[in-house]
Amino acid sequence: MTSRVADILTAEPLKKQQVALARERLDALIACSPENVGYGLGYFVPSQKIPIRKRQFFTIMTADGYATALVASVEYNEAKSRALITDIRPYNEFTQDPAAVLADCLRELGVANGHIGVELDFLPSRTFLALQKELPRAHFVDAERIFDHVRMLKTPEEIDLLRRCGRTVDEVYREVLPEAHPGMSETDLALRLIDRLLSKGVDSVDRIVIGSGERSAFANCPPTRRILCDGDVMRLDIFASIGGYTSDIARTAVIGGATDEQKRIWDALVEGENLVIDMIRPGVHTGEIWRRYVDHYQQKLGIEPTSNFLGHAIGLTLHEEPFIGRYHDHVLEGRTVLAVEPLYFTPTMGLHLEDELIVGADGCELISDGRGPLIEIG
Amino acid sequence: MTSRVADILTAEPLKKQQVALARERLDALIACSPENVGYGLGYFVPSQKIPIRKRQFFTIMTADGYATALVASVEYNEAKSRALITDIRPYNEFTQDPAAVLADCLRELGVANGHIGVELDFLPSRTFLALQKELPRAHFVDAERIFDHVRMLKTPEEIDLLRRCGRTVDEVYREVLPEAHPGMSETDLALRLIDRLLSKGVDSVDRIVIGSGERSAFANCPPTRRILCDGDVMRLDIFASIGGYTSDIARTAVIGGATDEQKRIWDALVEGENLVIDMIRPGVHTGEIWRRYVDHYQQKLGIEPTSNFLGHAIGLTLHEEPFIGRYHDHVLEGRTVLAVEPLYFTPTMGLHLEDELIVGADGCELISDGRGPLIEIG
Repeated sequence: MTSRVADILTAEPLKKQQVALARERLDALIACSPENVGYGLGYFVPSQKIPIRKRQFFTIMTADGYATALVASVEYNEAKSRALITDIRPYNEFTQDPAAVLADCLRELGVANGHIGVELDFLPSRTFLALQKELPRAHFVDAERIFDHVRMLKTPEEIDLLRRCGRTVDEVYREVLPEAHPGMSETDLALRLIDRLLSKGVDSVDRIVIGSGERSAFANCPPTRRILCDGDVMRLDIFASIGGYTSDIARTAVIGGATDEQKRIWDALVEGENLVIDMIRPGVHTGEIWRRYVDHYQQKLGIEPTSNFLGHAIGLTLHEEPFIGRYHDHVLEGRTVLAVEPLYFTPTMGLHLEDELIVGADGCELISDGRGPLIEIG
Repeated sequence: MTSRVADILTAEPLKKQQVALARERLDALIACSPENVGYGLGYFVPSQKIPIRKRQFFTIMTADGYATALVASVEYNEAKSRALITDIRPYNEFTQDPAAVLADCLRELGVANGHIGVELDFLPSRTFLALQKELPRAHFVDAERIFDHVRMLKTPEEIDLLRRCGRTVDEVYREVLPEAHPGMSETDLALRLIDRLLSKGVDSVDRIVIGSGERSAFANCPPTRRILCDGDVMRLDIFASIGGYTSDIARTAVIGGATDEQKRIWDALVEGENLVIDMIRPGVHTGEIWRRYVDHYQQKLGIEPTSNFLGHAIGLTLHEEPFIGRYHDHVLEGRTVLAVEPLYFTPTMGLHLEDELIVGADGCELISDGRGPLIEIG
């Protein structure tokens, strides 16, 4: 039983990390966040996803091609059975300091004095301080950018999971939104969405966002018992997943008839999305897309966009690189899966259109399509 | 508009932090984890709960009674509308470093050179390193224990939320498990549970654990399309919440008839839970409960308990202090809400009974009760 990457032909995530290690001239690369541990193991560790924060998990890759994982012992059975990595080492969450366990492992792997990439954007400060103390000669390098890059361009398998998940969500919106009516609660509607999503094959509904009335202006609010009333704007967003890969697709509906003003804003958002879709192809600068969108927004709505970003990649997490936004400029590449989301927020109302697409060789493939007229319910 | 704690009479969480600040002789106390930020604000910030990790959130209390919160600007509308704290300060997640924003705020509050409690078990290393650089004269103190203590004894309102949530979950198990049958999938069953839970008034179903067959040995696994078959052991755990306060109640069922051996193990777990319930009252040492449980387990099952703990408190998170386990000894106090969970795990089978109770003045009040015979389905 070995954990050398070369022996694990199907383990694309481990091979990609191996390439990154060499490029960055690191001796080891450590993942500790749910998404990067999940990426290396091939599944999200439930204790991290729930989360049970006091349990820490690590995957460690070395430059000479060895991969190992440290898991709190309660997760050992599942890791042993499912993980891409075969060298799984359990530790006792009550008696062992994860930093000490990790340091021992790095010593054993012969990299204790080397250049080690760690996710400083996730690793708890206490663990890092203890690790520095344990390994005073190690040189730690912030690995956030490395992992972002490793996960940015998706494999055909990853794209397939994202496509299946996004298409299912799109289909469920089309079926369930016409069933909504005044007098039902946000929770009633969420339940129908969850039911249909699970029935149609998503693995998990991680979060349904439903905000009606003034709560349509809240960014990611969960559904409540609030009853849908005539005149309400209702904003929905669905984060479901298949094989760990998430959807991020948003819709807006008005209960009863929409006002002319609401329709005018919505149409401008749809045109904004059209403009983006027309521009997307490998080689285009996201900064250029943003500037064209700003021009359009100002021309149609008379103001600057009310959000500082217009899109982002998705994958194992909701917000991945690259972003399309005011402060970003990135050259798009094929095999990126994006969520594009024109938004119009006031302090008491939010209109939100969000669709997913795959950047292909000469353009893009839409996964979902919410570009119809503003939905009116009841 | 002020954020002085004295003015916010209903804000028990802020008052408790104020007491802790004085006791620990701190100049300021900073929360950054979802649960402690949520505790101070009075609701979980959706971006933290989802989570969108790159957005950081902080609440800051000072010794002279001021409370403020730093939020990524997308969460400003909701925070302004809902938070217990009135001084909400948005920052731009793309252009501002949260550590710099936090340092500015601490300087303005006059505590930049003081003793500052921070959650070193959560705060990302990168943020802490930047904060140390910004405030070289500050003395940072690990605040994990402080927050654990602040949240340990529940108010009547918190107990009410936990009671309502736990009772609902217990009721839903009683109704839905008899509807399970061979040939249905784990996902089908999860869907029925979610439906009934939301219909009966929980706010959110955060995770359903269902592991049938060999997956009953996986600690916290989500449901899959696996079809329930005669002879399967199926382990379930439900983490639902009302007002942010969670349930943690587990059941085990056998599809078809249980074996005599399975029944014998189950009965020993039930007796183990009885033994714990009989011992629980304010003043008892959790170490003493553990030792009695170990004696019972060895006597009935001939081995040491297969898990290193037997119970833990619950609240805004699943695993809170105090624990009942091999490595813990804590004197129980009233107003603690506990989950007690006798377990029997092999590498391919898990039997799990878990109920919740409230430690009262002279004994305990059961919230849920799964102590019947081992459930047989179909």
